Amino acid sequence: MTIKMVADHAVWPKANDAIFGLAAKAKDAIAKYGKENVIDSTLGALVDDDGNLICMDTVYNELKSLPNADIAAYAQVAGQPDYLKAVQDACFKEYKPNAHIRAVATPGGTGSIRHAIWNYTNPGDSILVCDWFWAPYVTISEEFGRTVTNYKLFNEKGEFNIDSYKENFEALLNKQKRLVTVINTPANNPTGYSLSDEEWEQVLDIAKDNAKDKENKIIIVVDVAYIDYAGVGSERRKFFSKFSNLPENIFVIVGYSMSKGFTMYGMRSGAAIGISSNEDLAEEFYYSCMHANRANWSNGTRAAMSIMTNIYNDPSKLKAYENEVNKYKDMLRKRANAFVKGSKDVDLEILPYRDGFFVSIPCENAKKASDELIKEKIFVVALKKGLRFAVCAVSEEKCAVAPAAIKKVLDNLK
Amino acid sequence: MTIKMVADHAVWPKANDAIFGLAAKAKDAIAKYGKENVIDSTLGALVDDDGNLICMDTVYNELKSLPNADIAAYAQVAGQPDYLKAVQDACFKEYKPNAHIRAVATPGGTGSIRHAIWNYTNPGDSILVCDWFWAPYVTISEEFGRTVTNYKLFNEKGEFNIDSYKENFEALLNKQKRLVTVINTPANNPTGYSLSDEEWEQVLDIAKDNAKDKENKIIIVVDVAYIDYAGVGSERRKFFSKFSNLPENIFVIVGYSMSKGFTMYGMRSGAAIGISSNEDLAEEFYYSCMHANRANWSNGTRAAMSIMTNIYNDPSKLKAYENEVNKYKDMLRKRANAFVKGSKDVDLEILPYRDGFFVSIPCENAKKASDELIKEKIFVVALKKGLRFAVCAVSEEKCAVAPAAIKKVLDNLK
Repeated sequence: MTIKMVADHAVWPKANDAIFGLAAKAKDAIAKYGKENVIDSTLGALVDDDGNLICMDTVYNELKSLPNADIAAYAQVAGQPDYLKAVQDACFKEYKPNAHIRAVATPGGTGSIRHAIWNYTNPGDSILVCDWFWAPYVTISEEFGRTVTNYKLFNEKGEFNIDSYKENFEALLNKQKRLVTVINTPANNPTGYSLSDEEWEQVLDIAKDNAKDKENKIIIVVDVAYIDYAGVGSERRKFFSKFSNLPENIFVIVGYSMSKGFTMYGMRSGAAIGISSNEDLAEEFYYSCMHANRANWSNGTRAAMSIMTNIYNDPSKLKAYENEVNKYKDMLRKRANAFVKGSKDVDLEILPYRDGFFVSIPCENAKKASDELIKEKIFVVALKKGLRFAVCAVSEEKCAVAPAAIKKVLDNLK
Repeated sequence: MTIKMVADHAVWPKANDAIFGLAAKAKDAIAKYGKENVIDSTLGALVDDDGNLICMDTVYNELKSLPNADIAAYAQVAGQPDYLKAVQDACFKEYKPNAHIRAVATPGGTGSIRHAIWNYTNPGDSILVCDWFWAPYVTISEEFGRTVTNYKLFNEKGEFNIDSYKENFEALLNKQKRLVTVINTPANNPTGYSLSDEEWEQVLDIAKDNAKDKENKIIIVVDVAYIDYAGVGSERRKFFSKFSNLPENIFVIVGYSMSKGFTMYGMRSGAAIGISSNEDLAEEFYYSCMHANRANWSNGTRAAMSIMTNIYNDPSKLKAYENEVNKYKDMLRKRANAFVKGSKDVDLEILPYRDGFFVSIPCENAKKASDELIKEKIFVVALKKGLRFAVCAVSEEKCAVAPAAIKKVLDNLK
């Protein structure tokens, strides 16, 4: 190319989404060999045993019975007020922190992560993220001239690696005096790990200890994109109550998404929820995010907000919706259990799974492993440090047999 | 406040949207005095003579007959390929430039303006915008550490002020060697002005002249949010063909929005369409915007894309949709004509109106004028340099009588 027109910071490689490419290959294989002979574990969306995307009836019946004007009208820049109330109920359930809380509507969870990184870091800062992470944390950080530092998610016992977290947390904070740390729990993508309440205590103890230096500004971003499929009841939300009465220089931002819990991936709705013991700081968050909303996408998808509001404000609709979510949560749990058991039976090493859409298999040369698995008609996403198997997208029956097939391919690569 | 948690660049005043506040007051007045006694000219959306938001049947019937999975699924990061084709047809009609063209889906037109400013300027740069402008151009620029420079939109003859444009264009370009200039035409918000084809020639001549210096990078952003209500047929799209065979250091980005043309404000769909004589630069645009999509909102509203694709790929649906748009275009034209005639009859000075949702009335102390008009039960948005009357939201009958009432209030303020 002789000249460039975009500014230097906005030049990016010609990279298309690898997962979409793999999903297209899986689709071709299904057409060729029949769906019973293919395991398509590519996309991060709930799929039924026949390979069809699950779309909750309670959600789509609500959408299709909305008055057109409730879909057509602009939402307010920060989000519809009744939505901003409902989304807190949906997120926290009975574990709402005793704190000053403000919510702002965002497109999916991505918008909330983006706001946290843009609004709470300076150019050149590094964001703290574990080494098994959702790739867009890096995309977002790099887009804005920030970098990502990884700590080790697991120690040798397969628990949260609090030592690695502390070491990296303090090194970055001492250098930057300001730190955004993104914790993707419960149901981490890609491992399915969820921090225990005790592990959360340890994380918060480190933050509180470092908050004694009032010059330090600590921002804990909790990405709960998969929370609606975590645990059995609402026990995986208990940690929210630990965000009560924190020192004012610890600010918590919860990134909530409607994509998974409402099977509304394509409707782009979620929220950034700011939590502080200081009301001024909660207000500061609100107006900072509102300005960012206006400057990036103006306002959110009105229909998605109305759906949540209408469901949460009608006990019978809420009951029906919760029954439907729980049905799929059970389905997911059975699939994951089958995969975990299948792995144990054949001695396939997997990372500790607790909840959610994915299980991860650590391995060398994951790209090569993924390519070899394609020959076996198994489509699994290659990550830097292993393979991501999407139990959300594969039937229980196939989840039970996949580990043996994966084990065989990995052994052959050794 | 004792401490701040957000980074300095992300601290913003506690400012709520002024238009929403005024709209709420208008709603109260309607409840109190009856809708026949109130003129609510606040919101920038098509409203029927009874005060109801217009939602096109052809659009909402399509939405409500989409398979749920076509709403639920994630769209591709850059947008669905068939949408990215259809949106070019919708935007250019028969005047598609002879050039390399790439489209990327964005939330409404806002996302495209945001991408243009973020991707094509450096921190500290100034964006060139006319002095009657959509306020979010400033919000977007300031969010990213850019500023806005205004040229005068009109000369004393009420034509496009090419001298003021040239002077500011060259001053900024000489200083920055890179310039993003946003031209909101046809149907400028807030004036309703549309550049004539001759005025477009003058604008492009200035760009071409300055493009002779190969160090200069000129980015012309055309915000066509209201294009579907401009002109009678497609004559207001003729200028697009002038973007053929431009020098490679002139890059054109068209910001297209589905909000108005499809009465889908709340569904957040549009596109950034890049145009270049150099295919590499069109590709550079595509991957830069795709990265920015991923880093800000991940992907766009799938249902909105499907609606446009389905309508544009079915001649009978397209015919029905076009008939419906044209019906509202006629309605809008009649209202605007009534307002323009009413203004002439009472000697109310208005800016030259050609097309679209708004007419502007230049005046001193617009805020005071707006407040006084509220006492007359007329709700009009105050801008820095005048009042914005939304003919999109007011019946023809009221459009005819509003100018006399406004004239009276303005005269009393003198």
